[in-house]
Amino acid sequence: MAQQGLDGFLIPHEDEHQNEYLPAANDRLAWATGFTGSAGAAVILKDSAAIFVDGRYTLQVRDQVDEGLFEIRDLVEGGVPAYLEEAAKPGWTIGYDARLHSPDALDRLGAAAERAGATLKAVAANPLDEAWGANRPDQPCAPVSPQLLQYAGEASAAKRARVGAEVARQGADATVLTAPASIAWLFNIRGGDVIRSPLPLAQAIVSADGTARLFLDPAKVTPDLPAWLGNQVRLEAPGDLAAALAELKCKRVSVDPGQSSAWYFEALATAGAEAVRAPDPCALPRACKNPVEIEGARRAHARDGVALTRFLHWIASEAEHSLPDEVAIVAKLESFREATGALRDLSFDTIAGAGANGAIVHYHPTHRLNRRTQSGSLLLVDSGAQYLDGTTDVTRTLAIGAPTAEMARHFTLVLKGHLALARVRFPAGTTGSALDALARVPLWSAGLDYDHGTGHGVGAYLGVHEGPQRIAKQPNSVALQAGMIVSNEPGYYRQGAYGIRIENLQVVTPAAPIDGGERPMLGFETLTLAPIDRRLVARELLSREECAQLDAYHARVLAKIGPDAPGDVAAWLEGACAPV
Amino acid sequence: MAQQGLDGFLIPHEDEHQNEYLPAANDRLAWATGFTGSAGAAVILKDSAAIFVDGRYTLQVRDQVDEGLFEIRDLVEGGVPAYLEEAAKPGWTIGYDARLHSPDALDRLGAAAERAGATLKAVAANPLDEAWGANRPDQPCAPVSPQLLQYAGEASAAKRARVGAEVARQGADATVLTAPASIAWLFNIRGGDVIRSPLPLAQAIVSADGTARLFLDPAKVTPDLPAWLGNQVRLEAPGDLAAALAELKCKRVSVDPGQSSAWYFEALATAGAEAVRAPDPCALPRACKNPVEIEGARRAHARDGVALTRFLHWIASEAEHSLPDEVAIVAKLESFREATGALRDLSFDTIAGAGANGAIVHYHPTHRLNRRTQSGSLLLVDSGAQYLDGTTDVTRTLAIGAPTAEMARHFTLVLKGHLALARVRFPAGTTGSALDALARVPLWSAGLDYDHGTGHGVGAYLGVHEGPQRIAKQPNSVALQAGMIVSNEPGYYRQGAYGIRIENLQVVTPAAPIDGGERPMLGFETLTLAPIDRRLVARELLSREECAQLDAYHARVLAKIGPDAPGDVAAWLEGACAPV
Repeated sequence: MAQQGLDGFLIPHEDEHQNEYLPAANDRLAWATGFTGSAGAAVILKDSAAIFVDGRYTLQVRDQVDEGLFEIRDLVEGGVPAYLEEAAKPGWTIGYDARLHSPDALDRLGAAAERAGATLKAVAANPLDEAWGANRPDQPCAPVSPQLLQYAGEASAAKRARVGAEVARQGADATVLTAPASIAWLFNIRGGDVIRSPLPLAQAIVSADGTARLFLDPAKVTPDLPAWLGNQVRLEAPGDLAAALAELKCKRVSVDPGQSSAWYFEALATAGAEAVRAPDPCALPRACKNPVEIEGARRAHARDGVALTRFLHWIASEAEHSLPDEVAIVAKLESFREATGALRDLSFDTIAGAGANGAIVHYHPTHRLNRRTQSGSLLLVDSGAQYLDGTTDVTRTLAIGAPTAEMARHFTLVLKGHLALARVRFPAGTTGSALDALARVPLWSAGLDYDHGTGHGVGAYLGVHEGPQRIAKQPNSVALQAGMIVSNEPGYYRQGAYGIRIENLQVVTPAAPIDGGERPMLGFETLTLAPIDRRLVARELLSREECAQLDAYHARVLAKIGPDAPGDVAAWLEGACAPV
Repeated sequence: MAQQGLDGFLIPHEDEHQNEYLPAANDRLAWATGFTGSAGAAVILKDSAAIFVDGRYTLQVRDQVDEGLFEIRDLVEGGVPAYLEEAAKPGWTIGYDARLHSPDALDRLGAAAERAGATLKAVAANPLDEAWGANRPDQPCAPVSPQLLQYAGEASAAKRARVGAEVARQGADATVLTAPASIAWLFNIRGGDVIRSPLPLAQAIVSADGTARLFLDPAKVTPDLPAWLGNQVRLEAPGDLAAALAELKCKRVSVDPGQSSAWYFEALATAGAEAVRAPDPCALPRACKNPVEIEGARRAHARDGVALTRFLHWIASEAEHSLPDEVAIVAKLESFREATGALRDLSFDTIAGAGANGAIVHYHPTHRLNRRTQSGSLLLVDSGAQYLDGTTDVTRTLAIGAPTAEMARHFTLVLKGHLALARVRFPAGTTGSALDALARVPLWSAGLDYDHGTGHGVGAYLGVHEGPQRIAKQPNSVALQAGMIVSNEPGYYRQGAYGIRIENLQVVTPAAPIDGGERPMLGFETLTLAPIDRRLVARELLSREECAQLDAYHARVLAKIGPDAPGDVAAWLEGACAPV
C-alpha cells in the first residue's frame, strides 16, 4: 500500500467473475483475513481495519478472524460505505482493484469516500496479489467440453443469432459477456473451474451479427472444442482480451453494470468505445428453458428422486435403531446420488440441520458442529445435484421419532404455503414478487414468517441459483415466463429448536385451457419427485383441495419413482405416498 | 404559435396543480379539442395535429373531436413521445407551458423531440390562454375554511414540525408544496375549487423549522382563517409566489418532480437555489390517518352505510314492480345521501352500470347513454360521498331479478378475492403490490382477471384517490402502514353482458396478537358497512372460513346500520344480512 502511495485498500469477496463460487486462487478475502464465508468484505486503512459480514456469519467470523486486527461490522446495515465515511481522513487515497467491483458498487463507495474528503483510486496491480505471490494457488484450469445438443436443445449459432439481435436492440454493436453461466449457455460448453457448478471461467465478446470471440485459457481447450465452436467463434487467450477491447474504438458495446466489473467500463472508455449499460443479453433466454432442457430436467429429477427416496427410506429405517449424525447423513445422501452413476457434482454443499441446527438458515454441518439426530426432533435436509441433463435442489424436513403437535402445526402451515405456490395459475406479465405472498399467508395468519426469499431460478446443468426471475418480497420487474425453473421453498425457523423448509423445483408452463376461461394463463409443473413427510402433516389444517393436491403429488411420486426404486424402498414408498 | 416562432405546441390534460380534477378554467384540452375525458393530451404541429386518449375514451373521443383536424392516437402505447418522434421535423421548435408538465414527463418528451431533430421550448405565455381570452371561465374562488381539530386530529403546528423535520432529513432548507391535498392536510383547511373534493388551489413554501408561507387568493380567505393559521403561517397572494421563490437564493429546496411542474424547478434555478428532487413530505403522513381521523372515517362510513342500505332496499323493492334506469338510480342514491344532512359533495360521479354498461370500467351514465335495468341482469353501482369526518367509496353489484348460475359463479369468484384481501394479516414492510395477487387468485384459477388495480388510498375528507400506497400489479415500494385507508375492489367484466365489482374501504390496523405468534402483524379493519348481495353468492364455491367471514361481516353491518335505518329498511336488512 505504502509503495503505491495508498492510505487504504478495499478487499471485496467478489472476484473477477462476480460469480457465486470463487476458486481458491481468487478468494482474496479469505487469504487476507482468514474469513471463508460466501459473502463479505474488508477494508484496510493505514491506522485501522474492518471486516464486514452478514447475519449468517456473525459466529464464524469471530472464530476465523483476529479481532485485534479487524473490527467486525455488519455488511448490510451501513456496510463498507458507512465505515469509509467514518474512518477515512480528508486527503486520503484509497485503492481498489477495478476488476473486483461492479460500477454500481463503486458509485456507492466513491460517494462515501468523498463525504469523508477521501478519494478512491484504481490500482494498476493489486497489492494483495503481489503479497500473496508464490503461495497463491494456481488459477483453476478444468477442461472445457461440449454440452451436447441432446442436453442443450439449441445450437450455439441459433443462440448467438438471438443474442446478437438483442444486442442490436440494445442499440449496441457488440456485448461483453463476463458471467461464466452466460458463456457456458451461449457456446454450449461446460467446464469445472469452480466447485458445485460446471462453469468455465472465461470472457467473450459477441457481435450483433452473432459472431464471437471467446477468451479461454488454451490449457482448458479439449480436442473436440474448436470444431464444436465452429468458425463463427474465434478462440483466444484471456491475455488477449484487453487488446480485443481496444479494437472496439468508436463502437457501442453493451455491458451489464450489475454483473461486469468497473474494469470493463474503464477499458472501453480508454479504447474510445461507448459502453451501453444494459442487462446481460443471455440472462433471460438462458432462464427460459427449451423443450429439450425441460425434458432433461424431468429426467434429472426422476433420477435424483430415486436417490433421495432411497435416502429417506434409509433414514426412516435407520432412525428406528440408531440415530445418525449430520455428517453421516450428508455422506449417505451423497452415496445414493453417486450410485445413480450420473452424478457430476453436488449443486451446493448439503445442508443437514438436526434439531436446533435446522433453524440456522445457511447451516451446513462440519465435524466440529456435527450434531446427532434425536428422537422427537426434526431434521432439515437441503441438497441438490448436478447431472448432465439438469440441476436439482430439494429440501425435505423429516420427523425423527414422534413429532410434537406444534411441530406438525408449523410444518403444515409451511406446507399450505408451498401448495398454494405450486397450484397457482397466473396471467402473462406476473412477476415472482407478486406471487411471493401466496407462500407466506398461512404463516402470516399465525403471526409467523421466514426471512429468506421463496424461490430462485435454477440453471440447466449450470448454477443452482440463477436470475433474472425471483420469487421474493423484494420487487423484481422480470415476469415469469414459460420454461423458467424456480424453487418453491417456504420455511419456518424456531430459534434453538428446529427448522422447517419444504422445497421443490417447478417449471413455468402454459396452463391447460379451462372451461369458461378467457385469458391464457401460466402455471407450474413440479419437477422434484420425493415424498413429503406425512407424519408431519396436521390433516385438520388442510382444506379438501389441499389434501387432494398433496395426494395427487404423492401419487405422481409413487408412479415415477416406485418402478425405479429397489424392492424394499418401493414398498416403503407406497406407505409414504398413501393419501393423507 | 406563429407569433411566438413555434412550429408546434403541446397541450396536456394536466393543469398547474397536477390534480385529479380540473376547474373548467384550466381544462385547456377540452377547450382546444372538445374532448372532456379525465386524461389525455394533444399536440398541434404546423401541418398536423393529434389527440391522445386511453382505452376508456376511444368511443367518447370520436363523438367529441373533429377527426378531420385531429388524428386520434393511443395515450399509453407510444403516446405523445412516439408521435413527436414521427411527426416533428428537424429544426422545428415546439412550445410547451412549463407550468403544466412535470420534469419527469418533459424529460421523455424532450428526448423524443431530439430524436426527430426538433427542440422543445418553454413559452413565456401560453398561446392557448391568450386565444381563449374573454371566453375563459374565471378561476374558481371557493371560500377556504378551517378543518376543525375534532376532524383533523392533529394541529397544523404539530404537522408542520413533523414535515419540517422530514424536509431537513431530505437535506433541504425548505420545500415547495403544490399538491392541493397536501396543503389542505398540512394547514387543516378545506376549500372547494374543484368538484368532488374539498380542495383549495394554492401553493406553500414550508421551512425546515415548520414555519410556512401560504399562497392563497385573498378572495378565498374566510374571516376565521388568519387566526386559525396562526402566526407561523404567512398568508400571501398567489402572485407573490414567484418573488418568494426568488428569495430562496442559495437555499436547498425540495420539490416533488412527480407532483410539481417544471416551472418550479426553472424558477428555483433562476433564483440560484438548489432544487432537491424528493417526494412530497406530506404524502406519507397524510396517508397514515391518526386516531381521530380513523374514528371520523368509522362515523362517516356508518352514516354512508345507512344511506346506501336505504338505496339497496329501494332497488330491491322497486325492481319488483318497475325497472329504474341508470339516471334515476344515480339521482335516488344521491337523495339518500342528501338525507343524511351531512353530505358535502359526492366523492366522484356515481357509476351506475346496468347490464352491459357495467362492463365498461369507468362508465358513468348520461341521459344519452342511459339504460334501463332489466330483469335477469346485474347492476353495478360505484359511488362515494364527502363528509366533514371522512370520504367514502363503495361498490355493490346487485341482481335485478333472478341471476344466472354463471353470474353467481363470477360474482362469487370476485367475492373470494375480496374476502382474501380483507382478512389477510401481514408483517410490517409489506407493500400493496405484494398483496394484490390475493384478490386475483380465485379469478386466475378460472382463467379470468381484471384490468385495473385492486386498491387505492383514500383521503380523510380529501381526495378519494390518494397515494403513496396502492394495491396493484405494478410495483410500489411504499409499505402499508397503520392508519392507511385503502380500497379493496376486485372485479370481473364480461364484455357486452355485465360487470361485477365488490368494493369496501379498509384501514390498516395493528393485528391483535395471536397465540403462538412471534411477529407483530398488520391487518385490515373494514370501514364500509352495507350488505353484499347474497342472491349472487354461490355458496358451494365458498370455504367454511369464507362463509364465516361473510356472515361475520353481515352481522356487523346489521348491528351498526340496523338501529339507524327506518323500520322497513331495517326489516329488509335483517334478511339481507342473514348467514349464507
